[in-house]
Amino acid sequence: MSKILRVNMTNLTTKFEDVPEKYKFLGGRGLTSAITCDEVPPTCHPLGPNNKVTFATGIVTGTTAPTSGRISVGGKSPLTGGIKEANSGGIAPQKLARLGIKAIIVEGQPKEKGKFWLLKVDKNGAQLLPANEFVGKGLYETYPKLFARFGKDAGIIGIGVAGEMLMSMAGVCVNDPENRPSRYAGRGGMGAVMGSKGLKAIILDDKGGPGVTIANKEAFETGRKKLIAALQKHAITKPGGALNTTGTATLVNVINEAGALPTRNFREGRFEGANKISGETIKETCEKRGGVGMVGHACSPGCIIKCSNVYPKPDGTELVSCQEYESVWSLGANCGIDSLDVTGELIRLCNDYGVDTIEAGVALGVAMEAGLAKFGDGKRAIELMHEIGKGTPLGHILGSGATITADTFGVVRCPATKGQGMPAYEPRAIRGMGVIYATSPMGADHTSGYTIAPEILGVSGEIDKFSLEKGDLARNFLNTTAYCFDSSGHCLFISFACLDDRSGLEGVVEECNGVLGTKWTVDDMIRMGKEIVDREWAFNEAAGFTKSHDRLPEFMKYEKLPPHNVTFDVPDKELDKVHKR
Amino acid sequence: MSKILRVNMTNLTTKFEDVPEKYKFLGGRGLTSAITCDEVPPTCHPLGPNNKVTFATGIVTGTTAPTSGRISVGGKSPLTGGIKEANSGGIAPQKLARLGIKAIIVEGQPKEKGKFWLLKVDKNGAQLLPANEFVGKGLYETYPKLFARFGKDAGIIGIGVAGEMLMSMAGVCVNDPENRPSRYAGRGGMGAVMGSKGLKAIILDDKGGPGVTIANKEAFETGRKKLIAALQKHAITKPGGALNTTGTATLVNVINEAGALPTRNFREGRFEGANKISGETIKETCEKRGGVGMVGHACSPGCIIKCSNVYPKPDGTELVSCQEYESVWSLGANCGIDSLDVTGELIRLCNDYGVDTIEAGVALGVAMEAGLAKFGDGKRAIELMHEIGKGTPLGHILGSGATITADTFGVVRCPATKGQGMPAYEPRAIRGMGVIYATSPMGADHTSGYTIAPEILGVSGEIDKFSLEKGDLARNFLNTTAYCFDSSGHCLFISFACLDDRSGLEGVVEECNGVLGTKWTVDDMIRMGKEIVDREWAFNEAAGFTKSHDRLPEFMKYEKLPPHNVTFDVPDKELDKVHKR
Repeated sequence: MSKILRVNMTNLTTKFEDVPEKYKFLGGRGLTSAITCDEVPPTCHPLGPNNKVTFATGIVTGTTAPTSGRISVGGKSPLTGGIKEANSGGIAPQKLARLGIKAIIVEGQPKEKGKFWLLKVDKNGAQLLPANEFVGKGLYETYPKLFARFGKDAGIIGIGVAGEMLMSMAGVCVNDPENRPSRYAGRGGMGAVMGSKGLKAIILDDKGGPGVTIANKEAFETGRKKLIAALQKHAITKPGGALNTTGTATLVNVINEAGALPTRNFREGRFEGANKISGETIKETCEKRGGVGMVGHACSPGCIIKCSNVYPKPDGTELVSCQEYESVWSLGANCGIDSLDVTGELIRLCNDYGVDTIEAGVALGVAMEAGLAKFGDGKRAIELMHEIGKGTPLGHILGSGATITADTFGVVRCPATKGQGMPAYEPRAIRGMGVIYATSPMGADHTSGYTIAPEILGVSGEIDKFSLEKGDLARNFLNTTAYCFDSSGHCLFISFACLDDRSGLEGVVEECNGVLGTKWTVDDMIRMGKEIVDREWAFNEAAGFTKSHDRLPEFMKYEKLPPHNVTFDVPDKELDKVHKR
Repeated sequence: MSKILRVNMTNLTTKFEDVPEKYKFLGGRGLTSAITCDEVPPTCHPLGPNNKVTFATGIVTGTTAPTSGRISVGGKSPLTGGIKEANSGGIAPQKLARLGIKAIIVEGQPKEKGKFWLLKVDKNGAQLLPANEFVGKGLYETYPKLFARFGKDAGIIGIGVAGEMLMSMAGVCVNDPENRPSRYAGRGGMGAVMGSKGLKAIILDDKGGPGVTIANKEAFETGRKKLIAALQKHAITKPGGALNTTGTATLVNVINEAGALPTRNFREGRFEGANKISGETIKETCEKRGGVGMVGHACSPGCIIKCSNVYPKPDGTELVSCQEYESVWSLGANCGIDSLDVTGELIRLCNDYGVDTIEAGVALGVAMEAGLAKFGDGKRAIELMHEIGKGTPLGHILGSGATITADTFGVVRCPATKGQGMPAYEPRAIRGMGVIYATSPMGADHTSGYTIAPEILGVSGEIDKFSLEKGDLARNFLNTTAYCFDSSGHCLFISFACLDDRSGLEGVVEECNGVLGTKWTVDDMIRMGKEIVDREWAFNEAAGFTKSHDRLPEFMKYEKLPPHNVTFDVPDKELDKVHKR
């Protein structure tokens, strides 16, 4: 029977608890959100003693289900002031699941500031160890030291200096299969919440752990095979398919072509340098430079999509893993930068300091708008990233995210909702995505409901990206995503196959039924997804959010976006449909 | 017939309009709030093209009514995100009224950034003039240049570099009788809104202006005499009384004695150095140092209370006017600083750069909490103020106010509500003031409802400062203040005499009846005050505020304040009574 591990940082105690009945069928985001709603006062200060940070693996994480090595990190966000879950792949999620731990809840706050601890968890239990020797350094220096101490097979969930310094764009880092500090539950500043608890890292050693109990092996196997078949058939996810060869950055040219690649702080929808930072160019460069360069890298064991990459320097040695679509966009096109060597260096710095690449790039774009650098000036962008690492006043501004950067410098054109910087899809040109940004309980977040599937990729049908009736579409995507992908423990990228091929989605349901011993249908999972979203929305409402927060920034209503010269015209009443009860 | 002057900064046009019927009986805050509610979309960006900044004189401003030289500056606040009015004395309000202008509405925004204009208004009309030669300098340098150009009798309403740089603590400056840049409509960042319009200053020349029409001279004279009699009789406001001799800082020792003088970023309620920054010490020092030093200075012509001062350097030359209670507290006790020479220098810098002294001091306190300076380090506090003037990144943080400073550095203990830093009364020790801070549409603002009168001073009865049933008290104070003081055009300081002596309040009503030709009673004015507060609250609701914003910061609920060791225990339901409809 799996347990919940409760860690109290005020008293420095750890305790294993039985999983309450109400949490038995939850996992991942569904579980972190439920715990946040049950235990965190919605009006508490996100960095104060009454917030909690919860880590929960997905329902099938730790099994042989394909592409399911995900963890959700949840709590009240210092970036948005609302509920938050960010999730990540990497090595640690499966280790946590195999230790028989459904969730770790970290609560309280040390009275003494500036001291940090490690939480070591293995089959014998959990303990808190002093961590100050691992503090104040970049993660490319710290992670090897942690592995030297705890063994190369450890799973590590940690924060960098940005989290230590309580910056609102601090993410939570998970080591990848080669133990790089490269996978992130990045969004919403959960790294700062971890930092506010004095928790530097969780070290997981799953040797001798009980593993994940599967109640109905037959159902699980049937489901697993269906999902694998669907993934291996779909053009986007199959071996040698788009994600496997050109990675997520395969989207750069696609979205650019659609006129929806936010360029120079969302001033334009098409970037003249797009192809230079595209997935195709990443692949070519990896091949040309050779050395460690590779595409088709898996960010977590058991992933059969393998969309990650290892990007080489000109001499073939490693620059960074990984040049993702969101990262090459945010630190590239959004800053007017058209060099993968620059975006690679910026991503490496994000990984090193422990910040979300999306928020970092959006904040840099705003900083450029404020005149702190010229658009396209990669050298200056790198300097600005170093300010974050050094914790200078400017670094604290940028590290606090796009909204604080805009407010501090009086910038009106701030592409954010609910305080969170927008991802790589211009909402004026892709209206369904705009509705998701506006209404997701997480703030501007593409992973809450990836309507790019039908609006751009023709997955699950084709929907005109400019059409305005997107309320129902957005709500359906929010509901489906919350359980089927974010709670099951699968990566969002199984969604293409699952939405185009019902047997894929059935496979997910059957895997979950197999693990939990339930007899759910696809509709049941979507209904439970709706419950998750409703619960998150209720938390936000109690925290002070109203429908006026379910809006895009004002400038997108009066400023036309080239090349289509469109404003965000979705009427407020369409936005208000999404959470109508 | 008075007019409304509408200034469009997009097209650089000015236009005089008739006063609509619905605004005829409004003035000051009542008028600026009504115009903001009617013309500003509640969800607009405060620094974008759709916000407006409105300047309106009080109903009796420009007449011989005592202590009535006030102007209200209103719009949507970049500090709070809600509706805002800040008001000020000085020379300009009466000049504006005597020009027959009931309000100036400034709208739009120049397309080209970084250019500034002057609005010159005289009996012949209004025009916009290039202002760039007056930009980028401290106001102690700029104001003399403006007077050199426009004559020493000009009334000037301007912004400093903080407003030019769009900092959220930028105030709107009004020259005092000796033409110092020393009187401020300070709170809520209306200086930044003015800056966002490219409006550097309004220059008023009232020579040959029509003056204020008085519909019923007899009623006016009767009222005026009643109010003068009440003011001259009351211990607080009479000649040689508390305000006239020791100024507003007469409160330092009183509030300190009550255990409610917020000290070192609201860590304690009593400051060991209180007497060194008290009104008594200000008076003694003025007398001892001689030279220009004086108490009993009038900040605007026709004030019979005269609570201002001119504080001398050791050699008797002028350091600053004026060492107010709020300023010596915020830049003194709240920063652990016990030197009037230091607070004087800090106030001078606030005046020079154009920022609100309250917000500046609260932001400095938060910065000290964050470790940027030690509490009590006056030298470092002065350096930090210079950062604001220089517009460094740190200056932009501090200049954005206490809340942004706290968010940027991850400080949980931020004494602010709705984004605005708290004034000089600890809400844990004076609960009615806490209810006002929590529920005022303006954010933490003592002038919205000065319950200090009954809770500390025994004015209008005595109420236990610790008692929790303060919802009705707060609402009554909010209602009375909104019209009787903030809209009539009188300084808030007439309230002591008006609350203790009904004939004073009747005097205010009769003055207004005299000017407007109405036949109102005291109850009518309180009812109209309620309408103003309700309207402001509705704006905030539409802007996204909920009852969860009508709360004090969380730390005040769990952290005990010495010496009384009290938390803020007023129940939420008592707070929710205030705006119950």
